[in-house]
Amino acid sequence: VPDGERFHETRIPVRFHEVDSYGVVWHGHYASWLEAGRNDLAAAFGAGIVDMQPHGYLLPVVSMEIRYKRPALLGDVVVVATRLRAPRGAWLTFDYRVARGSDGTLLATARTRQVVLNRDRDLLVTLPSVLRDAVARIRAFHRGA
Amino acid sequence: VPDGERFHETRIPVRFHEVDSYGVVWHGHYASWLEAGRNDLAAAFGAGIVDMQPHGYLLPVVSMEIRYKRPALLGDVVVVATRLRAPRGAWLTFDYRVARGSDGTLLATARTRQVVLNRDRDLLVTLPSVLRDAVARIRAFHRGA
Amino acid sequence: VPDGERFHETRIPVRFHEVDSYGVVWHGHYASWLEAGRNDLAAAFGAGIVDMQPHGYLLPVVSMEIRYKRPALLGDVVVVATRLRAPRGAWLTFDYRVARGSDGTLLATARTRQVVLNRDRDLLVTLPSVLRDAVARIRAFHRGA
Amino acid sequence: VPDGERFHETRIPVRFHEVDSYGVVWHGHYASWLEAGRNDLAAAFGAGIVDMQPHGYLLPVVSMEIRYKRPALLGDVVVVATRLRAPRGAWLTFDYRVARGSDGTLLATARTRQVVLNRDRDLLVTLPSVLRDAVARIRAFHRGA
Repeated sequence: VPDGERFHETRIPVRFHEVDSYGVVWHGHYASWLEAGRNDLAAAFGAGIVDMQPHGYLLPVVSMEIRYKRPALLGDVVVVATRLRAPRGAWLTFDYRVARGSDGTLLATARTRQVVLNRDRDLLVTLPSVLRDAVARIRAFHRGA
Repeated sequence: VPDGERFHETRIPVRFHEVDSYGVVWHGHYASWLEAGRNDLAAAFGAGIVDMQPHGYLLPVVSMEIRYKRPALLGDVVVVATRLRAPRGAWLTFDYRVARGSDGTLLATARTRQVVLNRDRDLLVTLPSVLRDAVARIRAFHRGA
Repeated sequence: VPDGERFHETRIPVRFHEVDSYGVVWHGHYASWLEAGRNDLAAAFGAGIVDMQPHGYLLPVVSMEIRYKRPALLGDVVVVATRLRAPRGAWLTFDYRVARGSDGTLLATARTRQVVLNRDRDLLVTLPSVLRDAVARIRAFHRGA
Repeated sequence: VPDGERFHETRIPVRFHEVDSYGVVWHGHYASWLEAGRNDLAAAFGAGIVDMQPHGYLLPVVSMEIRYKRPALLGDVVVVATRLRAPRGAWLTFDYRVARGSDGTLLATARTRQVVLNRDRDLLVTLPSVLRDAVARIRAFHRGA
């Protein structure tokens, strides 16, 4: 669903052990690719997991949806294109397109949703300021600002 | 969404390495639990992956949706309850409920969808007879027959 | 190297995603099987990871050696036979034999070594009493007592 | 054991899910890093897994030894330094040093051994020419030629 927004791209070489006995990357491994794309985007804007640790916030994934279009193969470098949607409350929703790096073939699309917990594992209903600021910078990037 | 159908249950002990630095099972590992539940159900009705190999059919996953409710923890044995929906064409759709074995707490719900490819990796539009028969037996089990 | 000691056995079904594009279980996955065998043995004697958590001890693996004899295959249930060697200082050394459950074929042998750290991540030079007692019980089991 | 040979280096960012509940990268994941280092080295000299596929050779790992020195942490980029030893018969032995990229801290050393099987899964006793040539080029690189 292209809507003109700019996605952040992360290149990931397929590893041998990710390929299953069908000769294609096992579908479950995409979860780690999405996470790599998401964390790479966040880190580029100062809100990576390591940046968040001193603040004590946890961002557990509460849903994940993946639609597989074409298989990833041994030798592929995949490109995970990631976009953070405009936040609603304290929910963070990311969209993804996973493509083969060599020819741009779309391999999968995905969406994940996270909530924010504080140090006591209470669910927050609004984003804390450190995250709100990072989200604003990331959203500006997506809009091409 | 309980609808009275009987699910097939598979018990899986949490492994140490599945627990992440948040102290809970990493969300991506649920894909392997769903697959274990699905394959265990299929194998119980003579349609496991090993049973299918001589026939040459491949059943790639084309979509996966997981909703996470509560975390799985070190020491938990999870119970994956699996149900194959009534097939439409050659699509196979499975529903899942993942619960903590000790107290039945619901940890996640999920759905996966697979298509059937033949040996030449052509997409089938109707189920081959060996699969159709297994599906009929599995569906009879779910209905409590 | 059989020496008459009794090993503890843990049964583990091979999962689909553990099988690589060569059609055999990827060699790296054995690390999780060894750990499952080790933790299952420890838990059987009240010294599992969950039992140790209140005491604050960490037992990082400092070496792992695996010799692969025959491949594990889709459909196999492997049996991990585990033995804790008599401890020297605060080192814990485990030996393993991984076999195919259906016919007993030896698939791999392995050895891992762990040290014990306290809550402050200091290296201990003697086993704390809670571990020493568990080790004594486990060693008595191995000797057939 | 430095001996003056030049190692090939591969940079690998730690992924969130590789970090366990102790807050360090789980020891078993190093197997995939070693493999990435080994395959990256081989591919750089035209003998990667994809290059070998048309020839039908399989190179199963028959032993792996890892010694863990210091933990890898979230946020680390690790550098896997890989060296292929001079071959004996058809055995391929690789040495590894895994270090933290930011400060060069040595995290682990390792060694793996592989044999070569042909398409019929027969064990070869001498290297086939395609591999012998690649090995010669890789060894020249290590010697600094």
